[in-house]
Amino acid sequence: MHVREESGPGDTRFFVSDGPFDAAELARCAGAELRGSDAALAGAPRFSGIAPLQSAGPAQVSFLDNRRYLPLLEETGAGAVIVAPAFVDKVPAHAVALVSKTPYLAWARVASRFYPPPPVKPGIHPTAVIGEGAQIDPSAAVGAFCVIGERVRIGAGVCIDTHVMIGDGVEIGARSRIGSHVCLSHALLGERVTLLPGARIGQEGFGFATGPDGFETVPQLGRVILEDGVEVGANSTIDRGSIRDTLIGAGSRLDNLVQIGHNARLGRCCIVVSQAGISGSTELGDFVTIAAQAGLIGHIRIGTKARIGAQCGVMSDVEAGADVIGSPAMPFREFFRNVAFLRRLAKKPAQGGDGDKAG
Amino acid sequence: MHVREESGPGDTRFFVSDGPFDAAELARCAGAELRGSDAALAGAPRFSGIAPLQSAGPAQVSFLDNRRYLPLLEETGAGAVIVAPAFVDKVPAHAVALVSKTPYLAWARVASRFYPPPPVKPGIHPTAVIGEGAQIDPSAAVGAFCVIGERVRIGAGVCIDTHVMIGDGVEIGARSRIGSHVCLSHALLGERVTLLPGARIGQEGFGFATGPDGFETVPQLGRVILEDGVEVGANSTIDRGSIRDTLIGAGSRLDNLVQIGHNARLGRCCIVVSQAGISGSTELGDFVTIAAQAGLIGHIRIGTKARIGAQCGVMSDVEAGADVIGSPAMPFREFFRNVAFLRRLAKKPAQGGDGDKAG
Amino acid sequence: MHVREESGPGDTRFFVSDGPFDAAELARCAGAELRGSDAALAGAPRFSGIAPLQSAGPAQVSFLDNRRYLPLLEETGAGAVIVAPAFVDKVPAHAVALVSKTPYLAWARVASRFYPPPPVKPGIHPTAVIGEGAQIDPSAAVGAFCVIGERVRIGAGVCIDTHVMIGDGVEIGARSRIGSHVCLSHALLGERVTLLPGARIGQEGFGFATGPDGFETVPQLGRVILEDGVEVGANSTIDRGSIRDTLIGAGSRLDNLVQIGHNARLGRCCIVVSQAGISGSTELGDFVTIAAQAGLIGHIRIGTKARIGAQCGVMSDVEAGADVIGSPAMPFREFFRNVAFLRRLAKKPAQGGDGDKAG
Repeated sequence: MHVREESGPGDTRFFVSDGPFDAAELARCAGAELRGSDAALAGAPRFSGIAPLQSAGPAQVSFLDNRRYLPLLEETGAGAVIVAPAFVDKVPAHAVALVSKTPYLAWARVASRFYPPPPVKPGIHPTAVIGEGAQIDPSAAVGAFCVIGERVRIGAGVCIDTHVMIGDGVEIGARSRIGSHVCLSHALLGERVTLLPGARIGQEGFGFATGPDGFETVPQLGRVILEDGVEVGANSTIDRGSIRDTLIGAGSRLDNLVQIGHNARLGRCCIVVSQAGISGSTELGDFVTIAAQAGLIGHIRIGTKARIGAQCGVMSDVEAGADVIGSPAMPFREFFRNVAFLRRLAKKPAQGGDGDKAG
Repeated sequence: MHVREESGPGDTRFFVSDGPFDAAELARCAGAELRGSDAALAGAPRFSGIAPLQSAGPAQVSFLDNRRYLPLLEETGAGAVIVAPAFVDKVPAHAVALVSKTPYLAWARVASRFYPPPPVKPGIHPTAVIGEGAQIDPSAAVGAFCVIGERVRIGAGVCIDTHVMIGDGVEIGARSRIGSHVCLSHALLGERVTLLPGARIGQEGFGFATGPDGFETVPQLGRVILEDGVEVGANSTIDRGSIRDTLIGAGSRLDNLVQIGHNARLGRCCIVVSQAGISGSTELGDFVTIAAQAGLIGHIRIGTKARIGAQCGVMSDVEAGADVIGSPAMPFREFFRNVAFLRRLAKKPAQGGDGDKAG
Repeated sequence: MHVREESGPGDTRFFVSDGPFDAAELARCAGAELRGSDAALAGAPRFSGIAPLQSAGPAQVSFLDNRRYLPLLEETGAGAVIVAPAFVDKVPAHAVALVSKTPYLAWARVASRFYPPPPVKPGIHPTAVIGEGAQIDPSAAVGAFCVIGERVRIGAGVCIDTHVMIGDGVEIGARSRIGSHVCLSHALLGERVTLLPGARIGQEGFGFATGPDGFETVPQLGRVILEDGVEVGANSTIDRGSIRDTLIGAGSRLDNLVQIGHNARLGRCCIVVSQAGISGSTELGDFVTIAAQAGLIGHIRIGTKARIGAQCGVMSDVEAGADVIGSPAMPFREFFRNVAFLRRLAKKPAQGGDGDKAG
C-alpha cells in the first residue's frame, strides 16, 4: 500500500459534505461581507467545498488567517476567500472575498456548513449491556460493547461510541458525544459535552495518608461535574473530588493527555493544552489559558484571563490577566529578560561575574 | 440539565455508606482520643456521615488538617471533629474532638469506616471470554467484555471491571482491583494491587537498534512485577523488562499518566505523581517521592527517601534523603537561590554583569 | 502470592522460544564473526537461549554493549558472547565470541532468532463486529470485541488484538500489529505498522475559534498517515489533520504517552521518546530525535538529524544536525555552560554580581 498519496481535506472515505452553497449563503453563515468585482460576483459558482489557498479551485472556498501566507493568496485559484478587511485588496480579481473581522471564526462556520457533525443514528447496539433503571432517550445512540450502569440517564441526541463504560448513576446531557473506550463514573455532564477516545473521568483521585504499615487510602467521595459544552481530549484524565466536586466550567476545552486532580475547579471557557496538569484543589477563573506541558501545584488560584505558558511550573497564585512562563513561573517579560541576560553574561567569562577566571 | 447543583460528599447516586457509628467507635477505628465537654460527650449522637467543616451538621464528622482552616473550625456545626492535639481548644463546645497526632490518617480511617470499598460481587459476566486453563477464584468478579488469556490465575476477591484484557499467563493476587479498559500482559501482580482505568501494563518497551535499513526491534523478554499493595493511576504505562523485570515495590503508588520504562525498579512505598516519567533501567530506593511532571533519565539510581521536585529533570544519581528540583536537578536550596539571584541581577542591567549596556 | 521470584528473560509462561541454534548459525544471523579458542569452538554446544552476562550458562548467549560491564564479561559463564572487536580479548576462554562492529544490532538479531514475534493466528473472533464492505485478508487476525467499520481494508498477516475500534474507511497495510484498546479513525497505515495498547489515532485535533458565545469548533478534515514500519507507543495520541494530513514518516518510532498535534509531519526514522509532544503543523526532517518530555510549539521546522534534549521547550526552528536542550531551547554546550556559570556565580554573592549585598 502506498500511503503518501495526497488528497485535499475532506477525503470522501472519511467525510461526508453538504452543499453546494452559493456565495451569498456562505457570507450569511459566516457573518461576512461579500465583495468582489462585478465579474467575479456575477460569475461566482455554487461552491462545493473547501481547500487550502495553494490547491483550491474555482468551486472551492479558502481562507487567509496569517499574514505569512499572503503570497499564496495572490496566486490562489480559489473561487472565494475569507479574509480580514486589511487584505481584501490582495484577493485575486477572479475570486470573491468574504470579508470578516474574525476570519478564523468565519472559516469555522463555513467549514462547518460544508462538514456538519455527522448525524447521530439513534438506537442501542444489540451487544450493549444496559443496567437496570437506565433511562436512554430514544434519539440517543449507544455503540457496540458499551456497558451502561444502573440508573444512568442519557439525554436527547447523545452519541456514545463503542466500548464505552458508564458507571452507575451517571447523567449525560443532550447532544453530548462520548468517544470510544471512554470510562465515565461518579459524574454529571451538561449538554453538548464532548469526550474524545480514552478519556477517563471520575476515577478516584490520588489520596492517601501515611500509616505505620505504608499508605492508607482516603476515600474519594466527590464527583466530576462537566458543564455545558466542555470538551476533553483523548486519553486525558479527570479525577473525581475527594470531599467536594471536581468541576470544569462551561465551554472549557481540554486537549489530549491532560491531567486534572481531585477537587480542581476550572471556570468558564478555559483552555488546557496537551500534556498540561492541574493538581488537586487548584482553582482557575474564567478564560484562563494553560499551554502545553505546563503544571500547576495544588491549592492555588489562577485569576481570570491569566495565561500560563508552555512547560510553565506554577507554584503560587497568579493574578487575573497575568502572562507567566518558566519554572518557577514568572512574568513573560522577566523570564525572557533573564534568559537573554544569562546567555550574554555566560558568554563573556572575563567580564562582570566569573571570579574564578576573571580574578 | 442543571449540573452545578451542589451536594455534600457521598452523593447517594454514587456512594453507599455504612453507619451510623457512635463517637467511641469512631475514636477506636481512628486510633484517636475522645475529648469534649461533659455535655458534648453525653449528647453525642450516632454519626451518620462526614462533611467539610463549613457544611457539616451535628450528625456528621469533619476534620482539620491545615492551620489555614482554623476559622472554619471555630464556626463549624459538626458534631465531631478530628484534630491534632494543638487544636483541641479550638473545637467548639457543642462538638466532640477526636484527637490524633496523625489527623489525616485518622480521617482516612473514619472516612473508610463510613465508606468502605464497595463489596465485590463474585461471578463471571456471561459476555466475558475466558482462555483455556484460566483459574479464576470463585470469589472473584470478572466484568462484561473482559478477555482473560490462557492459564491466567486470578485470586480470591479480585474485582475485574469491564473491557479488561489480560494476556496469557498473567497472575493476579487476592483482593486486587483492575479498572475498566486495563490491558495487562507479561505480568505478575501481588495482593491488593489496584489498577485504575486505562492503565497499560506489560507491553513491550522502547527498544531497538539502528540497522542499515532503519530501526530493528530488540525483543523485550522480561516481565512486570507489581508487588503487594501497588496502585497505578489512570492511563499510566509500565513497560515490561527487556532482559530483566520491571519491578514496582510493595505499597508504591503511581498517579495518572505516569510512564515507567523497561527494567526500571522502584523500591517499597515510592510515590510517583501524575505525568512523571522514569526511564529504562533506573532504580529507586524505598520511600522515594517523584513529584508531578518530573523526568528521570535511564540507568541512574535514586537513594532511599530522596524527593524529586515537580518538573525536575534528573540526569544523574541522587543521594538518599536528598531534595532536588530543577532541570538539570540540583538541591532545592541551590535551585531557589539561583532563581532569586538571576532575577535580582537581571533587573539591574547597569550593575555587575551586563557589559553590553554598562560598558 | 510471592511475586519477587526471579527468573531469567523469556519466562515460559509468557514467551515461546525457537532453537536450539549452533554458533555458526547465530553468527550468520547476527552478521558477526565467530572467534574463540579451538577448544571453545570445538566444544560449542547448540545454544538454547539468551541471558544477561551475570546469569548466563554454557548453552546461553549473552552480550556486552557497555564498557561499564566489562568485569561481568570476564566472569561470565555464557557459552557465547556478542562483543565489539575491542573487547574480544576479554571474552573468557571457555566461551566463543560473536564479534560485531554493531553489537547491539547483532544482539537484536540473535534475540529475535530465539524469540521471533509470535505467529499470527488467522481468523476473526466470533464476537467481533464487522462493518459492511470491510475487506479483511484471510491471513489476518481480528480479536474479541473488535469493531471494524464499513469499507475498512486490512492487509495480509495483520494482527488486531482485542477491543480495537477501527472507524469507517481506514486502511491497514500488511503485517501490521494493532494492540488492544486502540482507537483508529480517518487514517491510512502502511505495512508493518505497530500500535501499542491504547494508542488513539485520527481523532479530531484541538481546533476552535473564539466566537461571541464561547469557542466554536473548526472541522478537522484531514487524515493521519502512518507510513511503513511506524511504531506508536501505549496511550499515545495522534490527531488527524485539520486541512492537510498529519504524517509520520516510514520507520519512525514513538514511545508511550506521546502527543502529536494536527497537521504535524515527521520525516523518516524519527524517534520521539515518552511524554514528548509535538504541536500542530510543526515539521520534522528525517532521523530527528526528540527526547522524553520535550515539547515543540506549532508551525516550526526541525532539520534532519537534529536532536532535541529531554524536557526541552522548542519555540523556533532548529537547524539540521543541531543538538538543543533547555526551555527555551539552546545548543547543548550553551545550556550547560549557563547552568554551570549561574551555579558558580550564585554561590559567591560578594563577588561580581550581587550589588545588593556587595555594594
